[in-house]
Amino acid sequence: MQPRYIKHIFVCTNKRLADSPKGDCTQCGSHDIRLKFVQLINQHGLKGVIRANKSGCLDACEMGTTVVIYPDNIWYTRVANDDVEEIFTTSILNDEIVERLAATEQTWVELRAIRNTRK
Amino acid sequence: MQPRYIKHIFVCTNKRLADSPKGDCTQCGSHDIRLKFVQLINQHGLKGVIRANKSGCLDACEMGTTVVIYPDNIWYTRVANDDVEEIFTTSILNDEIVERLAATEQTWVELRAIRNTRK
Repeated sequence: MQPRYIKHIFVCTNKRLADSPKGDCTQCGSHDIRLKFVQLINQHGLKGVIRANKSGCLDACEMGTTVVIYPDNIWYTRVANDDVEEIFTTSILNDEIVERLAATEQTWVELRAIRNTRK
Repeated sequence: MQPRYIKHIFVCTNKRLADSPKGDCTQCGSHDIRLKFVQLINQHGLKGVIRANKSGCLDACEMGTTVVIYPDNIWYTRVANDDVEEIFTTSILNDEIVERLAATEQTWVELRAIRNTRK
């Protein structure tokens, strides 16, 4: 069994209709966020070792752009373009976590609460 | 830090132009493969615990439908619809590997060789 990447970053690039109450990550600039990861990977000579992948819906739509890093299993929500460099340095170049952006149990409680108010 | 899923399956659903020499996973039936994972997840009452996600290109285009399971970091290539139930039982319900489908170092050597012949 042979894994392919040391770190595999998935950035949600799902797109919904403009009037969806869920919103989507594309509206939050996720395409540019992914491209910034790609750029940093290339700048550090890590192409083929680290991958910044588009992903379909990661089911955290209401929480801004969602990024998950595997195999570490670090979930970041509400990621902005300005956060990418810090995430890259902290979680890709080092095996650490940007605590202020990392999902906690409270993140998922909040997400469920938002969804429950729509029911 | 709070991960979201016990197992996160990514199925490449990338689509290229029909005449691309790379081919793509959609041509190989990856949408149906993903839906079969979703169906099995639901049948086993694992919705919200296991996710079968669409993913953008996983960069193994020439190797048939690619599926990666995180956080285990198991890569399967040339996955057919008939393989899904075995993968689900083996790698999702149990923490094991379907060896005949799992990528090996040879898989990536083969992929590089295919690409080099096109250069």
